[in-house]
Amino acid sequence: MKLGDHAIRNGELISPSDAVLPITLREVQCNFSVYEALRVIEGKVVHLLEHLARLKESAELIHLTYGFSDEQIGEWIFKLIRTDAIDFATLRVLIVGGLEPILFVTAAPILEYPQSMYDEGVYCTVYEGERFMPQCKTSNLLLNYLALEDSKRRGGFEALLIDGNGCIREGTRSNFYGFRDNVLHTAPLEMVLDGITRQSVLKATAGLGIKVIEKAIEYDNLEYYDEVFISATSMAAMPIRQIEGLVFPGDHKRTLELCRIVRNRELDSTI
Amino acid sequence: MKLGDHAIRNGELISPSDAVLPITLREVQCNFSVYEALRVIEGKVVHLLEHLARLKESAELIHLTYGFSDEQIGEWIFKLIRTDAIDFATLRVLIVGGLEPILFVTAAPILEYPQSMYDEGVYCTVYEGERFMPQCKTSNLLLNYLALEDSKRRGGFEALLIDGNGCIREGTRSNFYGFRDNVLHTAPLEMVLDGITRQSVLKATAGLGIKVIEKAIEYDNLEYYDEVFISATSMAAMPIRQIEGLVFPGDHKRTLELCRIVRNRELDSTI
Repeated sequence: MKLGDHAIRNGELISPSDAVLPITLREVQCNFSVYEALRVIEGKVVHLLEHLARLKESAELIHLTYGFSDEQIGEWIFKLIRTDAIDFATLRVLIVGGLEPILFVTAAPILEYPQSMYDEGVYCTVYEGERFMPQCKTSNLLLNYLALEDSKRRGGFEALLIDGNGCIREGTRSNFYGFRDNVLHTAPLEMVLDGITRQSVLKATAGLGIKVIEKAIEYDNLEYYDEVFISATSMAAMPIRQIEGLVFPGDHKRTLELCRIVRNRELDSTI
Repeated sequence: MKLGDHAIRNGELISPSDAVLPITLREVQCNFSVYEALRVIEGKVVHLLEHLARLKESAELIHLTYGFSDEQIGEWIFKLIRTDAIDFATLRVLIVGGLEPILFVTAAPILEYPQSMYDEGVYCTVYEGERFMPQCKTSNLLLNYLALEDSKRRGGFEALLIDGNGCIREGTRSNFYGFRDNVLHTAPLEMVLDGITRQSVLKATAGLGIKVIEKAIEYDNLEYYDEVFISATSMAAMPIRQIEGLVFPGDHKRTLELCRIVRNRELDSTI
């Protein structure tokens, strides 16, 4: 058995081709669902407990109730890992709400980026829009999709979302940070998704003695920042070379150091 | 054959149990899809051309391209109506975007409301939130779902969405209107979905010599309105008896007259 031979539906092994949802179900039509994306490294899951805790929080915020315990979900994840002898993968846990909640676990090849992107930094575009319930990892992702598609059409790697006050809150699949006078700025938790990697980045800054201000960066003030980056489960900390027309010429030294610490910490936190 | 025996997928008749979507498709995960709900009356479709035009507009607004022509979609709809000998139904046309767009037509019993609701008017609650791209009928419906669930929990029939300026824009599945000094007020098109029934209501007001102001009603000014209602394909014009704590005691005479005209006009516009 190998990656992609199976999926899980409410604890049962199924063929991935049966990982489908009926379009007539109201909860599917209205994307009343929450999800998590997990990294599997050498058969172990990175930050599993944090992801399961966030899954539960997302669900509670939208009153999506499910009877699955963290232990159960964890067992099902490892059932899939064992059955398909998965070494490295990105797993997706999806819970669709309603009278009979449905939980899926599906596996895809691990999402990794070439070293050159870390060396050179990525190009990001911006997109105006505010996520609905940003603390909540739901399937209500059309804004994120449209923003990222717009970015890709223009050669971008990620789109940064600008809120009604002209502030950059987060990327479509990442948190956003900027260094100004050696202080790291990032949007506060009430504005953004509580990224598991964001938690790691902030822990790493504490270890390095970097001061952090949790305040969203104004797009018009970006020029005052000398190093900017994004973070996500798949990227750890990813340097940004350019945002729209504004170039950040540095060597991304602090970002790459944070990235290294975050990745090392992952290995200590696998289950 | 009868209602619900079949569905349509890209022109082919399928079993409704096969009207499913793979959860691993990015466009499904991000609800990159548009839809329309159609009324079938005596085997004919109400306002078919208007619905197909709006489907196309919704798709264009989010850069969802599909190769299906209006004629093709119309033929597929009638294929389903003929095959299952459908007299009365609510049909749902759903197009999921991506490299290979998928179009489904599914049929459900026609959605109708008891006469008592029209006689007495319905109870509406309010919910703070603005739809993303309100002109666009996409599956990005979590706000609508949460608002309506909140309303149902409190005994409501519909939730009215209040924007950041304290104005009522629309309901979760309806447009909203209020009479003040015999002038009908409703939110302008740039703020709301261009309801097919909204178009009908506005045509009917013209015939009755009712003046219309397209401006969103401030929630705090609701007390100055003496008759309020909502409109939707399934409801035509539905009187409102009460919004949160505020009662509208009238006989809903103008609303019911508009409702009658809208329903009559539907019969003239079936195909």
